[in-house]
Amino acid sequence: MSRKMRILKPLDAAWMYVDTVDTPMQVACLAIFSLPADAPDDFIKELFAHLRSVQRFAPPFNLKLRSPRLKALLPAWVEDEHIDLDYHLRHSALPKPGGERELGVLISRLHSHPMDFNRPLWECHIIEGLENNRFALYMKMHHALVDGIGGMRMLQRMLSPDPQARTLPPPWAVGCGAAAQRDDAPSDFDARLRQLAAAARTQLEIAPAVAKALGHVVRETVQRHEPQEALPFAAPHSVLNARVSAQRRFATQHYELERVRAVAKASDATLNDVFLALCAAALRRYLLEIDALPEQPLTAGVPVSVRPADDQNAGNAISFIIANLNTDVEDPLERLRRIRESTHLAKAHLQRLPKAGIDSYTMIFMAPFILQLLVGLAGKARPMFNVTISNVPGPKHALYFNGARMEQMYPVSLLSHGQALNITAVSYDGQFNIGYTGCRDTLPSMQRLAVYTGEALEELERALGIAARRQPEPARKTARKREKVAV
Amino acid sequence: MSRKMRILKPLDAAWMYVDTVDTPMQVACLAIFSLPADAPDDFIKELFAHLRSVQRFAPPFNLKLRSPRLKALLPAWVEDEHIDLDYHLRHSALPKPGGERELGVLISRLHSHPMDFNRPLWECHIIEGLENNRFALYMKMHHALVDGIGGMRMLQRMLSPDPQARTLPPPWAVGCGAAAQRDDAPSDFDARLRQLAAAARTQLEIAPAVAKALGHVVRETVQRHEPQEALPFAAPHSVLNARVSAQRRFATQHYELERVRAVAKASDATLNDVFLALCAAALRRYLLEIDALPEQPLTAGVPVSVRPADDQNAGNAISFIIANLNTDVEDPLERLRRIRESTHLAKAHLQRLPKAGIDSYTMIFMAPFILQLLVGLAGKARPMFNVTISNVPGPKHALYFNGARMEQMYPVSLLSHGQALNITAVSYDGQFNIGYTGCRDTLPSMQRLAVYTGEALEELERALGIAARRQPEPARKTARKREKVAV
Repeated sequence: MSRKMRILKPLDAAWMYVDTVDTPMQVACLAIFSLPADAPDDFIKELFAHLRSVQRFAPPFNLKLRSPRLKALLPAWVEDEHIDLDYHLRHSALPKPGGERELGVLISRLHSHPMDFNRPLWECHIIEGLENNRFALYMKMHHALVDGIGGMRMLQRMLSPDPQARTLPPPWAVGCGAAAQRDDAPSDFDARLRQLAAAARTQLEIAPAVAKALGHVVRETVQRHEPQEALPFAAPHSVLNARVSAQRRFATQHYELERVRAVAKASDATLNDVFLALCAAALRRYLLEIDALPEQPLTAGVPVSVRPADDQNAGNAISFIIANLNTDVEDPLERLRRIRESTHLAKAHLQRLPKAGIDSYTMIFMAPFILQLLVGLAGKARPMFNVTISNVPGPKHALYFNGARMEQMYPVSLLSHGQALNITAVSYDGQFNIGYTGCRDTLPSMQRLAVYTGEALEELERALGIAARRQPEPARKTARKREKVAV
Repeated sequence: MSRKMRILKPLDAAWMYVDTVDTPMQVACLAIFSLPADAPDDFIKELFAHLRSVQRFAPPFNLKLRSPRLKALLPAWVEDEHIDLDYHLRHSALPKPGGERELGVLISRLHSHPMDFNRPLWECHIIEGLENNRFALYMKMHHALVDGIGGMRMLQRMLSPDPQARTLPPPWAVGCGAAAQRDDAPSDFDARLRQLAAAARTQLEIAPAVAKALGHVVRETVQRHEPQEALPFAAPHSVLNARVSAQRRFATQHYELERVRAVAKASDATLNDVFLALCAAALRRYLLEIDALPEQPLTAGVPVSVRPADDQNAGNAISFIIANLNTDVEDPLERLRRIRESTHLAKAHLQRLPKAGIDSYTMIFMAPFILQLLVGLAGKARPMFNVTISNVPGPKHALYFNGARMEQMYPVSLLSHGQALNITAVSYDGQFNIGYTGCRDTLPSMQRLAVYTGEALEELERALGIAARRQPEPARKTARKREKVAV
């Protein structure tokens, strides 16, 4: 076999280690498009035919696992020279009336289906039958191939700001992601054995190092005695932190970004703080209804972008904080105020670190979480935090897919044991789009979370005395505007 | 835990032993319905709502595996007291034009999706958007819950010969299958351990017994020196007998039963012989085209119904023969003649056995096949036969589903390693409906097999000088009548 082999880097390989039947490590993006005003009846058929005609595959779309059975031991990619595009590119339809509800049901199913580890780990679905002359694109990939931000970029690459642009190459012809830039690993057997031995050693050595580092973090945090600084592994037990099962629910919500900005401005908070407060309000209400709100406040793991203390450039570093969601506080404004204080403290702590420290701090901070997953303790031990909430900046201006305007885009995320809910928002063209990915068995009626997030924004607007500046929505959206993508 | 536990009988448990990611042991039935002439626009919506409202679950629809991880060790059912019907009952749609091709693509996907072993092992899909005012029902179950014939009966139970009958209870409210009648097994731990020990012993003991019994069968068969009697494990290697992968293709074909009967009558063969000859012609042509026709003739494993020598009643026994498909013979009539001779010899041999012998003969005959699967040799060793071809008698008269006439019904079958193709026919209301279930990677363009089977019937009719007595088809079928459900 002369096929080039690429051994996964440890961080990518980690996604394979923790990939199980119950926790498939697949991420996706859902984009909703409106047909061009002058679209012929066979617009979608022709679009699909165009996509299907492109049989060039760039990395990582041409990579498959060398030995699917050994994926957790020493995962390596090889190039697939016989890609069956009809497997990866799929044409689907919604039953009538083709509303956001039917779309939510289909996306929940598609995101619950496992991937075939004998093939390149991606799927692209074109979904027709969405009411009001719309259609959807659902693009799924394994997290070992692409991270969330890479996935968003990949989607953007098949879109154009120009409504007249046609037949842009599909993502599989262009390529993206970490795997694409990866160096070739030594492919001789000795080198592989050495890497295998090193990987085993690392796993044995990581536990004490992690315990020590974590002890340091916890001690330092505790000594500062800030009531709003949330501690790792000090989160209350909650239904959100059980072991998860294989089936997913997906729901969405979207606002005008300007409304969230206005609330942030009026309350002297960041947009991210307001987003956390909206999620906190929805979680509090949802958990109260199912009689499952812990007395202690829930905490959220939040990826943040920080400017390091020693960095004079505009360059940012991505790190991770734990925010106190103050779900024990009844008053929405007081809740927002305390959340703001919590994220402020956590970020201030991060910003005192030098640039090099932020990376290792983040690694050390997250290591016990990853370790819990690896050793199978996740969902059994005390959670590091209760829920992941992240906010990814997206494209600022409208984008088009062969002339079809993208109306919304939503991230569809992954879950792990102990983390039965993920809330990720992405901004796009003046909108704030939120995707809720949850464990089907843990979160019945999860769409209520999406509805409550919407009502939480109205509540904050009222409390702050802001008239909700609602622009009249385009006619095509008014029909069922309350209903959200949900199951 | 006070839940009643039912340990699976060995034959049902065997389906769990050989169930793997690549060989899910799931069977299904696809039924196509035409809407009643006076159907309101929301007919399907209302039908779905009715089905969804029935939240009573009879065995085996309420049974789930006690320990999915131990399914291959000591599978046992327990009652699921919290069945999430929205998981099992699914509403889907076809993209335009909603023809047989789009239906085939969807069924292939649905039949490739694994089941969730943490839930009762069944799914019921209502599929709208089929052109010419039709819709489809796809009902999937694990083979450990129901056999092929049981599945057909189950479908029939939700249908009525009366076009006026409405709101018949769905199958999950009525129940069916072997698991439903099963006695409760001892649930104390000691008894389970004893059964586990016994199961392990049986597996150790079976190998020499099977080898001896098989040797006897082979010797006896060989000594008779009949050139048309096909020998087990004497089949040629072929592409149909490699190890299979997880994805499936599904295709269909249907004729008027009268045409097949006329060919049978004119050639003094049985309907089953003609069916084998049609499959043989299609396989020969398909394999020639992909340059994969073995020099030696292919053989087929064929379930048959025989009347034992000592049985004066009308009661039949189900056994299994291996037929020589004579795919090395070019002339279609000569091929049919030789196939007839082959099945005649095999059945005559069976009929010389007493009733008790037929059962054990069948068991012994099939045991090495099952043993190959269990020890993982299937798809590596010489195949016992090349392809399974079966013909199941179905309902003789038209049936209705809440007033919607069933136009066709097709079996969707399972594959095992070494058996990449299954052809199963079912007769219904003067029709002969054939379902082809194949391994996606092994059988590219499998729909050609369906097309060639159709053309093989025309070829036999011409060779026998029978004018094809085609009744004018109803208007709604003429649009795309050549196109078959296929991917």
